[in-house]
Amino acid sequence: MDTPAGPTARGAASSTPGDPGVDRRGFLCAAVGVGLARRMQEPSGMYGLIGKITATPGNREALAAILLDFSVAGMPGCLSYIVARDPSVDDALWVTEVWDSEASHKASLSLPAVREAISRARPLIAGFSDRVVTRPLGGIGLAANRAG
Amino acid sequence: MDTPAGPTARGAASSTPGDPGVDRRGFLCAAVGVGLARRMQEPSGMYGLIGKITATPGNREALAAILLDFSVAGMPGCLSYIVARDPSVDDALWVTEVWDSEASHKASLSLPAVREAISRARPLIAGFSDRVVTRPLGGIGLAANRAG
Repeated sequence: MDTPAGPTARGAASSTPGDPGVDRRGFLCAAVGVGLARRMQEPSGMYGLIGKITATPGNREALAAILLDFSVAGMPGCLSYIVARDPSVDDALWVTEVWDSEASHKASLSLPAVREAISRARPLIAGFSDRVVTRPLGGIGLAANRAG
Repeated sequence: MDTPAGPTARGAASSTPGDPGVDRRGFLCAAVGVGLARRMQEPSGMYGLIGKITATPGNREALAAILLDFSVAGMPGCLSYIVARDPSVDDALWVTEVWDSEASHKASLSLPAVREAISRARPLIAGFSDRVVTRPLGGIGLAANRAG
């Protein structure tokens, strides 16, 4: 009963790091410190991303390490950022993100540390796919890392 | 450059609440209290789920409320559990989960509170799709809620 307009259709649109939009895909974010489980946060405020990143052959672990480096650098407004292997697809990673706002996500892409990481990651990336933008409502594991 | 065996293919296999496997889809989990951002956790141990749940027409908010109820009940081993709207698909929700092990996830499905919630949610669910099992490596917003 899934709708034809679902993410499977969107997911079919893969892209490469050469695409101009690559910096806007938001596969990088980071935060530090204590997170707080919350039953419900501002439904209209939070901005989520789910997406798959396929590494160039044999480079999944190296790419994951670059993505995870950012978990130790502060990134205002990043509430959740999880990097995961896809056990059924060689070289594939999934990155799921929650930001306190779309603006915080966009702002992160201008930070020197993020731009530097994107430049290190790009040669290891074969493509992006299955990207879904979400509006998170709440749950467990949303770090206390509000912007501003 | 996505692989043909990617989640788009898996996502094409939608199902209904009547499927025997519904209780194993792990769209319910919960935890309480403080989460800790971690750069890297046991890569081999964590178990992740990404999936879309489509509500029966007009029931997305009611279904989301049932799913979010579980964020205030303890659920051993659930490190992240986020419910999000799909802004581009009416009645669609995305649930992303991280557990400290697949065993913790499976154990949660036998808990009375979860079984009761599944029974409340089932009439509001039109179908499941786009399910991906992942092996999380780490990141931000993994709640400190280890099992045992």
